[in-house]
Amino acid sequence: MSANPTSTPQGHERTAYFISDGTGITSETVAMSLLSQFDDLKTRNVRLPFIDSEAKAHEAVARINLAAQNDGRRPLVFSTLAIPSISGIVQTANACYLDLIGTFVSSLETELGREASRGVGQFHRIKSPDEYQARIDAINFSLSHDDGQQHAELGTADVILVGVSRCGKTPTSLYLSIQHGIKAANYPLIPEDFERMRLPEVLYQFRHKLFGLTISPERLHEVRSERRPDSRYAALENCRDEVRQAESMMRREGISMLSTTTKSIEEIAATILTVIQLDEGGK
Amino acid sequence: MSANPTSTPQGHERTAYFISDGTGITSETVAMSLLSQFDDLKTRNVRLPFIDSEAKAHEAVARINLAAQNDGRRPLVFSTLAIPSISGIVQTANACYLDLIGTFVSSLETELGREASRGVGQFHRIKSPDEYQARIDAINFSLSHDDGQQHAELGTADVILVGVSRCGKTPTSLYLSIQHGIKAANYPLIPEDFERMRLPEVLYQFRHKLFGLTISPERLHEVRSERRPDSRYAALENCRDEVRQAESMMRREGISMLSTTTKSIEEIAATILTVIQLDEGGK
Repeated sequence: MSANPTSTPQGHERTAYFISDGTGITSETVAMSLLSQFDDLKTRNVRLPFIDSEAKAHEAVARINLAAQNDGRRPLVFSTLAIPSISGIVQTANACYLDLIGTFVSSLETELGREASRGVGQFHRIKSPDEYQARIDAINFSLSHDDGQQHAELGTADVILVGVSRCGKTPTSLYLSIQHGIKAANYPLIPEDFERMRLPEVLYQFRHKLFGLTISPERLHEVRSERRPDSRYAALENCRDEVRQAESMMRREGISMLSTTTKSIEEIAATILTVIQLDEGGK
Repeated sequence: MSANPTSTPQGHERTAYFISDGTGITSETVAMSLLSQFDDLKTRNVRLPFIDSEAKAHEAVARINLAAQNDGRRPLVFSTLAIPSISGIVQTANACYLDLIGTFVSSLETELGREASRGVGQFHRIKSPDEYQARIDAINFSLSHDDGQQHAELGTADVILVGVSRCGKTPTSLYLSIQHGIKAANYPLIPEDFERMRLPEVLYQFRHKLFGLTISPERLHEVRSERRPDSRYAALENCRDEVRQAESMMRREGISMLSTTTKSIEEIAATILTVIQLDEGGK
């Protein structure tokens, strides 16, 4: 995901609206996927979440029409509005209106032989307080089990990421818990472990939960140099040693391993989820 | 987002595939939005990310056809596959195929007067190493500026969340940094601040960056009771006092405020983003 999709590039040619009766996450996600197919297109991106009344729909129309006038080109409206009376109003704006959800609802109704609720977007609301609490608990778990801080509850982890310091364990653990409610702990592999040629002892009983992250020595050297420039910790030679030893330890212990060097958090997480899914026999 | 969308409910009537040449995040997001419109539908959800070769496409078809056979009903395939030769193969499966991106690409091509790249999904990949690094830096910033831990770099925060202990500041800060690359710090308001009737002193210079979170005393009592049962900290009476004093302090200081009581992290973040966007004059 881009760092800040609502930034305003100089000289945009279109304004893009991500409009929704809920958070707008779905419309923004799809819109950014679509826009990424047009390499040289510069858009000014505006989120319009929580458009859940006719009054707000009319306000949105006014803003869209103003942008059409200012840009000299009609805006792109990426919509997940579900209620016909509200989307009907927004569709009167001077814009290219893409109905990201409604377009598929009829096909699904036919396929499933039943009617959709066509209610306000429920997806990013709290539907089940217990399920939501489980997700918050997962976030707190990942925070308190970052970098091997705690051992007591490692047994309740869904996954324990292992790897050398600064290979990407922390952002991945937090992403897995926040986005997927997965209790992701992480535990560093350090030079002492390599000398003993053994994993940290506490991990052996949870070996089936371990997932290894690795990274190219050159990239690791860069990352560590920002943190502690000119240290032995960051030295390229030391990074080479640590990565080589960590990888051979993980291979020896039969731990699945993924290189984070050129991968985004989303790509790393998607891979881990597939492995967990497979292990759980979920197919 | 549901805690684990790939769980397998008992007695599902359909298998739903989230298929993509990238992470599958977009297809899963849209699919979950669509499925949430059919209240009583039970699906078994399977992620199929990184389907980026014809060989993998054929494997996917085999899995989909097997599910069709096992379920006695054809699966739902939510696809963001962009390359025609790959999507063409998957479309031969015995399934209801919904083309979540391609459906809109032609309309956009017409509207924009240029051709889409129709390349493998780029959206969740690292496009700009600098931008990606900024996002990782934001995550590290939010982690190290959780709960008022550090003051030194508060000046570089994009937003500083304030509120009583356990009102939702930490998950919201982490979400903002992970999903949006926003440097979100958080700072607790504690009884000593209420006695002095002043914000923590360090915050005054950053007042324009403050955003307040609040919560119903009853909910706060529940949350704190899980952490420290039967403590003064968790007592309903104390929660009532703290929330009342925090709210009146935030009102007095002119700090925007949002109640987290019934809101998901996504809803809280969407609201904060809209406020930040407005303040930045981004429209």
